[in-house]
Amino acid sequence: MTGDSGLLSPGWAGTGIDDLLDDRAWLTAMIKVEAALARAQAGIGMVPPDVPAVLDRIDADLFDWSALVNGVRETGNPVVGFVGQLTGLVHAIDPRAADFVHRGSTSQDILDTATMLICGTVLDRVLDDLRRTADAVAALARDHRGTPMAGRTLTQHAVPVTFGLKCAGWLNAVLDLLDRVRHLRTGGLPVSLGGAAGTLAAYQEFTERDSLDLVEPFAAALGLTAPLIPWHGARLPIVDVANTLSLITGTLGKVAADAEVMTRTEIGEVAEPSAPGRGASSAMPQKRNPVHTTAILTAARQVPALVSVLHQCMVVPDERSAGGWHAEWQPLREALRLTAGAARNAADLTAGLTVFPEKMAANLRLTGGAIVSERLGAVLTPLLGKTTAKEVLTEVTATTGDVAAALVDALRARGHDTDLDRWKELCDPNAYLGASLRLVDRVLDRHRATR
Amino acid sequence: MTGDSGLLSPGWAGTGIDDLLDDRAWLTAMIKVEAALARAQAGIGMVPPDVPAVLDRIDADLFDWSALVNGVRETGNPVVGFVGQLTGLVHAIDPRAADFVHRGSTSQDILDTATMLICGTVLDRVLDDLRRTADAVAALARDHRGTPMAGRTLTQHAVPVTFGLKCAGWLNAVLDLLDRVRHLRTGGLPVSLGGAAGTLAAYQEFTERDSLDLVEPFAAALGLTAPLIPWHGARLPIVDVANTLSLITGTLGKVAADAEVMTRTEIGEVAEPSAPGRGASSAMPQKRNPVHTTAILTAARQVPALVSVLHQCMVVPDERSAGGWHAEWQPLREALRLTAGAARNAADLTAGLTVFPEKMAANLRLTGGAIVSERLGAVLTPLLGKTTAKEVLTEVTATTGDVAAALVDALRARGHDTDLDRWKELCDPNAYLGASLRLVDRVLDRHRATR
Amino acid sequence: MTGDSGLLSPGWAGTGIDDLLDDRAWLTAMIKVEAALARAQAGIGMVPPDVPAVLDRIDADLFDWSALVNGVRETGNPVVGFVGQLTGLVHAIDPRAADFVHRGSTSQDILDTATMLICGTVLDRVLDDLRRTADAVAALARDHRGTPMAGRTLTQHAVPVTFGLKCAGWLNAVLDLLDRVRHLRTGGLPVSLGGAAGTLAAYQEFTERDSLDLVEPFAAALGLTAPLIPWHGARLPIVDVANTLSLITGTLGKVAADAEVMTRTEIGEVAEPSAPGRGASSAMPQKRNPVHTTAILTAARQVPALVSVLHQCMVVPDERSAGGWHAEWQPLREALRLTAGAARNAADLTAGLTVFPEKMAANLRLTGGAIVSERLGAVLTPLLGKTTAKEVLTEVTATTGDVAAALVDALRARGHDTDLDRWKELCDPNAYLGASLRLVDRVLDRHRATR
Amino acid sequence: MTGDSGLLSPGWAGTGIDDLLDDRAWLTAMIKVEAALARAQAGIGMVPPDVPAVLDRIDADLFDWSALVNGVRETGNPVVGFVGQLTGLVHAIDPRAADFVHRGSTSQDILDTATMLICGTVLDRVLDDLRRTADAVAALARDHRGTPMAGRTLTQHAVPVTFGLKCAGWLNAVLDLLDRVRHLRTGGLPVSLGGAAGTLAAYQEFTERDSLDLVEPFAAALGLTAPLIPWHGARLPIVDVANTLSLITGTLGKVAADAEVMTRTEIGEVAEPSAPGRGASSAMPQKRNPVHTTAILTAARQVPALVSVLHQCMVVPDERSAGGWHAEWQPLREALRLTAGAARNAADLTAGLTVFPEKMAANLRLTGGAIVSERLGAVLTPLLGKTTAKEVLTEVTATTGDVAAALVDALRARGHDTDLDRWKELCDPNAYLGASLRLVDRVLDRHRATR
Repeated sequence: MTGDSGLLSPGWAGTGIDDLLDDRAWLTAMIKVEAALARAQAGIGMVPPDVPAVLDRIDADLFDWSALVNGVRETGNPVVGFVGQLTGLVHAIDPRAADFVHRGSTSQDILDTATMLICGTVLDRVLDDLRRTADAVAALARDHRGTPMAGRTLTQHAVPVTFGLKCAGWLNAVLDLLDRVRHLRTGGLPVSLGGAAGTLAAYQEFTERDSLDLVEPFAAALGLTAPLIPWHGARLPIVDVANTLSLITGTLGKVAADAEVMTRTEIGEVAEPSAPGRGASSAMPQKRNPVHTTAILTAARQVPALVSVLHQCMVVPDERSAGGWHAEWQPLREALRLTAGAARNAADLTAGLTVFPEKMAANLRLTGGAIVSERLGAVLTPLLGKTTAKEVLTEVTATTGDVAAALVDALRARGHDTDLDRWKELCDPNAYLGASLRLVDRVLDRHRATR
Repeated sequence: MTGDSGLLSPGWAGTGIDDLLDDRAWLTAMIKVEAALARAQAGIGMVPPDVPAVLDRIDADLFDWSALVNGVRETGNPVVGFVGQLTGLVHAIDPRAADFVHRGSTSQDILDTATMLICGTVLDRVLDDLRRTADAVAALARDHRGTPMAGRTLTQHAVPVTFGLKCAGWLNAVLDLLDRVRHLRTGGLPVSLGGAAGTLAAYQEFTERDSLDLVEPFAAALGLTAPLIPWHGARLPIVDVANTLSLITGTLGKVAADAEVMTRTEIGEVAEPSAPGRGASSAMPQKRNPVHTTAILTAARQVPALVSVLHQCMVVPDERSAGGWHAEWQPLREALRLTAGAARNAADLTAGLTVFPEKMAANLRLTGGAIVSERLGAVLTPLLGKTTAKEVLTEVTATTGDVAAALVDALRARGHDTDLDRWKELCDPNAYLGASLRLVDRVLDRHRATR
Repeated sequence: MTGDSGLLSPGWAGTGIDDLLDDRAWLTAMIKVEAALARAQAGIGMVPPDVPAVLDRIDADLFDWSALVNGVRETGNPVVGFVGQLTGLVHAIDPRAADFVHRGSTSQDILDTATMLICGTVLDRVLDDLRRTADAVAALARDHRGTPMAGRTLTQHAVPVTFGLKCAGWLNAVLDLLDRVRHLRTGGLPVSLGGAAGTLAAYQEFTERDSLDLVEPFAAALGLTAPLIPWHGARLPIVDVANTLSLITGTLGKVAADAEVMTRTEIGEVAEPSAPGRGASSAMPQKRNPVHTTAILTAARQVPALVSVLHQCMVVPDERSAGGWHAEWQPLREALRLTAGAARNAADLTAGLTVFPEKMAANLRLTGGAIVSERLGAVLTPLLGKTTAKEVLTEVTATTGDVAAALVDALRARGHDTDLDRWKELCDPNAYLGASLRLVDRVLDRHRATR
Repeated sequence: MTGDSGLLSPGWAGTGIDDLLDDRAWLTAMIKVEAALARAQAGIGMVPPDVPAVLDRIDADLFDWSALVNGVRETGNPVVGFVGQLTGLVHAIDPRAADFVHRGSTSQDILDTATMLICGTVLDRVLDDLRRTADAVAALARDHRGTPMAGRTLTQHAVPVTFGLKCAGWLNAVLDLLDRVRHLRTGGLPVSLGGAAGTLAAYQEFTERDSLDLVEPFAAALGLTAPLIPWHGARLPIVDVANTLSLITGTLGKVAADAEVMTRTEIGEVAEPSAPGRGASSAMPQKRNPVHTTAILTAARQVPALVSVLHQCMVVPDERSAGGWHAEWQPLREALRLTAGAARNAADLTAGLTVFPEKMAANLRLTGGAIVSERLGAVLTPLLGKTTAKEVLTEVTATTGDVAAALVDALRARGHDTDLDRWKELCDPNAYLGASLRLVDRVLDRHRATR
């Protein structure tokens, strides 16, 4: 059994994320959840005080894997078979403790809570990588605050920007992500505790206390939050995680899409960090394929669709649906993998990005000044009227070459005596950066404030 | 031209939402945005103080519609043609003012801001309908706090719940939506103000002041927020709206999915509010089709896919992409329509829902007590051991009939003398409701607190 | 490393499909592709005739797995690292042969062809399961050709149908699938052979013959078809497979959705095949969860989204994109897994489905005859006129009870003397089956003809 | 009421497609369907022979639009209200005929058939545009059969191709589309005729003949096909259309994605057809935005998600679902609009595409010969061994400049005396085109054969 080790998943292969998300990780999380539940139950006298410690001793490696998988086929979820084996393993250690395993519980309580636990661990890692990304992008924004380059809209040179401003846009978006992930991590990951149909009736059966008293200590033991009521049929926590994942891959995907364009052979404004063998082609020695960019973009192409499955899975009837709950697990795992992979790749990409300011400058000169035609329009309009100004500009920017010179000719042909130097100055892209630098500063301030 | 008036859109047809979202609504919003921009610009001396008032006088009906649509074909967005016509209309009123229309601005500033303006209006309406839904569901939860019914998992009777608990689950989810929508409405809808490539350079060209000073007054004039930096290429505001819409249709879709099952001829636990002609079939006079449920479910099936387009559109290169930005408009509008339609239908559905407690009770009795086998297991296990207990229960619940009597027989056959009355009592579904009532109270408290 | 063994994938867990689709399967397929390529090249003298046999001796177990996965991270695809290791393994057997490994080839040729090879194997298995499903459903259609049951629209009883007709609908749809899968299997799975940018230039470099002569023998060796031109950037073959997978899960999902409704405790018209432990709940001994239905429905919820990723991946620039090609692999694999799992579950579900005709009959009687109000309308309209007929029917079907008797009363109240027996006869659901039986026969004929 | 006239839909605005797809078009189609049904019924004596002619006289403009829309709200579909008004309009012409309107029919028969009718009309238009696209692309392939340009993979120059080969790839894919659309148009668009639950019982009620005899003439009257059995619950025809639409936008999207890259200011290898005002920016006179490309790409971003809704809608229970059927209409219409718009834009784009072979040549020279390093590797390997060859090539391609000269230096440094001219020749991109020209010819042959 090799499952999916990353061979077909360049979005996260080799980033080490699968250890946190493979089937073994889920099994381990389910054991932890059963132990935490027993601990909470021991706290109100529902199980003897020594049961949790027995559960702590159970390791994922003790399970018969193939029986687990067959159990999924027979019962539709991994928990029934898991609880059976777990009970056996506990029995082998302490026969009396076996009767208290999974007491009053239901598959969904265990699996949903295990999922939240795993989400927490993965989000912690993602937070780290987003922080590294923010720091790297902030350094780029600072270093290239005033490095002019062509702003591009609909693939065409539009007006000048600075590379620092582009980085500030990335940074601001990554800071938004950090806010969202932190918020979700601390307040958005609840335990699930409802029993068979969300009434906690079976838990109640085993205690004189209010079964709802279990929820807080159960949550505390796992570093999760306590929900107001069971959420078996109200899947907001799953969708909140999912939406955040898609914001992450969407935002990092925007960074990668920019980098992809700028890496093109003809544009050459940035290059990915290089290392021996990285980006190698099987046949073409000259190639340095943009592998981080590719990894991020491939993740960003998949996550929205996976997330849409989770949105659809909100719409299920009954106290637990046949098929809806079950359709959440794999898309959520895959989205977590891809997002964590994208965050790692983004951190690596931005930390090692090579920038070629001189190529930016050369590209900026390509249109001979036409890139500031917007500005020329603003200057010419009072002089010639809106219509003639536009006509002149359309004329002088149609030919690539020296726009300032062409403009002087066009103006003289229309009887305006004018000074070439002034137009040369107006045509200087570096002099038409608007609020770029101040915008960079704003975002760097935000970055400093949130560290 | 009839466009889409609702004929093919039962998700929102006849709810009046299209007036807020049709092309005319967008045109009107764009006019308002240009006026607000001019007003902000007048505030820092970029345009004469009387220009905004001229813009206020322009009405959507004055535009040549077919020229607008052809402009979209020619330029890829509605703003270029709109500004052309707007300038002409202003010129007809005050020739001098025409020069100041759309000063320093760019298509994306106008359209993005208009979109946010429309989102605000629609979200206000959605808020109203969600509030009505919450109130109606709260009343149901209160009235049926202790009305027992079958809890169902994977289509099968599981353990008893109360209809009030089901409603509390709906209510808690709708209260979550209210929190989200309020938060988004007040803090998540920014104006867009960046100029051609997000540098505000053309705005800067026309003022000695800092062009960034435009942002706050522009936002204030429209009841929107001021972003830290332009978001032309960072589409979080769009995706935040989209995600919220999908949470709404997902949550209301869950309510509808429950209602759909309970409305089935064989189950008959609830019925939609009736009115003459509502739910009529073209051929079958006996039918009362669940039209509100259908409307909500049809919306919930579409919105996640529309939202996934918006997630994908985050991943675009450059200062503005060719095709990505453009792909947002229609899916967002359609998602807004469907969500607003779903909210209206949910308010109507829940306000008029007829509940049949006696049918709930009858369904609960269908399995002769097997619905509490979980409880019986808890009682039998200490008596017989886990294995025998399970064996006995599997045996006695296999036959539909009287589980208590069968159980007494089975126990006696195994040499346990036992009392039928005790088992009858244990088999009473009404006595196995766990924390149902306390959970209902929790959510009703939350509802009261948030009104 | 456990990857995904099925623990979170009830859609295919335990169906044995993962052996055909796990990473090892892909590695094995890539080895076969390299061997077939070498064989085709030997055929035109591009490599020595003994090289293919050396490649035949390489087994997937010889590879250093962790190096492979790291290679994916470094180069963005599994082929570069694979070819490196393969060359080494060949070298260990025959140093001279090593120079001819992967001659003139490119990553995409190998991976795309391996993917098609795997698609073929999986589709063969799916074909078997669809054939079994068709046979089982045909038997049901035959046995229940005339078994009346309630036809349901929008959850409400509409008019009577037969269970055989419902099965005929399923059967006809499965026969459509069989046609599609056979067509795809024989003609729709091409090898990929284009070299670095689809020109076959590197292949050409090593031969005096036309490099295009490689394509036919390469395809023949693998049981695939020869494309007219390379399809590196034209992803129709992938999308054709994907669309077929979605047709399969959509069609089988419809069967499962019907079965799900009919399995509900209150409806009880069919039951899933039972087996010890199957459908067991972890807490409720009485439960028999519909696990096949759940497995199929969970697959059907995921596949459309995975397929939409593949549709999106058609839209990529250049001779090979950064991220688009890469985003295909995992969604396609997952869709294949889920579809093959659904086909296996559908075959098992339909082969063992228990049918309860008496429950169908009982449900049919639930509305006291209102289920044929359409027919009553047809009879009453000439008698009373359209308006009065509708009015009377609405009145008599509003109360559950005996529609025939109520109708006689209503008619008499309006001065029509009428005969109760005639109305009882008209109210008999079994007498209002339309063309149901002939439609069943049509589809059974088709089934016979296509065996 | 303006609905959606194209203002937010640059994917199809101004292409005239909306006239075939707006609400009025659907209403007109429903009238035609009722007339064709009456005609088929007259053929077997179910309705008087003069009824169809009365229906032929009904025009969409006679309907009360707002009542229709309210009817959708009340009944969940447009047909109930439509039939009511239609009956009234017929009554006004011939009171006796009114009784025969919609005889024995059901909403789904009318709406599904109207949908297929509209699909046919739209597909005819799409076929025309695809044919124009194929012809235009064939001309480009022929004219630029041997025009060398850089083949690009993962954004980097890979090996040379010809622009003709790129066009041949586009052409082959468009020819595939033509095959698919023709096949679908002639055989894949069935009428729907099943009555309330697919038994044709109500049709049967009004005739002594076999109600199934209606199907063929009904289909023939509308130019559609006759299905074996009703397809109310088996949505293959809808999904077949949907999948074809997605193939079209995916394929044309690939063409547009290529064009988008080649249009970039820095690359400049092609330009969109220009016209006064086309591609104009509201602020930047120099800009010529690629509007056709944008229109196609925006369509290609939306259609896969819309299609995924239709895939999901296959999975519905019962003889007709509550919400599933209803969720098909708008996504299908939108996908038809976007696809027809994309086809028109693709025809216009390719017919007027300006090609700059000299810019292609200049870009090809950018890497000083490194673009043929694959070839150099093939030549050097026998000379230096695989390892040293790769090392040398990595070295000489790392610096941009003259690869041939650097190679001679590197070889001489390693003691190989060698001839610069030979390496210059090997470095000539034009001499490393592989099978490009023969591949172009293959596809042009296919194009000729299919005209």
